[in-house]
Amino acid sequence: MPCEGGVDKLDAARAAELHRQVPAWQLRDDKLYRRFTFRDFKAAMRFVDQMADVAEGEGHHPDFAVHYNRVDVTIWTHAIDGLSENDFILAAKIDALAP
Amino acid sequence: MPCEGGVDKLDAARAAELHRQVPAWQLRDDKLYRRFTFRDFKAAMRFVDQMADVAEGEGHHPDFAVHYNRVDVTIWTHAIDGLSENDFILAAKIDALAP
Repeated sequence: MPCEGGVDKLDAARAAELHRQVPAWQLRDDKLYRRFTFRDFKAAMRFVDQMADVAEGEGHHPDFAVHYNRVDVTIWTHAIDGLSENDFILAAKIDALAP
Repeated sequence: MPCEGGVDKLDAARAAELHRQVPAWQLRDDKLYRRFTFRDFKAAMRFVDQMADVAEGEGHHPDFAVHYNRVDVTIWTHAIDGLSENDFILAAKIDALAP
């Protein structure tokens, strides 16, 4: 589902339950956060482009910051300023791209 | 020139002089900073990919953060923890990509 709202913010218990499915992500301040590190900038950009395709497919977009070979990704549902199930689905799909 | 070092940090007077060539960028904390805003995520990603090509061509890589249609770009020369002429050249080349 796109992230335009209409979904409820997950409560802490449900968020913790879903978090067990994507343990590589940190759950903090009602956001999911993961750092990915690559061989070089080119490899980081290949990941970024694949992540962008997944985001467009999901209609749900992560925030990310690129520092040469490092990509810091943050996921949350802006419309509710918190986490929804979609965030965990997006995190799992991004995990599948990582080497 | 690639950013692996071997260049001198610009002094404030020279940085201010070069800054006049790329006035859309803010010069702060010895870094160049510019926010670009696009119609949507797809357009932002097109810009990001073009910027990545320029960066690879220059052998000099900006930091950037993407938040849906917004791209915040920061340029400096890591090896000298300050600004070199290359930073202003990269900024000018990135300016040329913006709509």
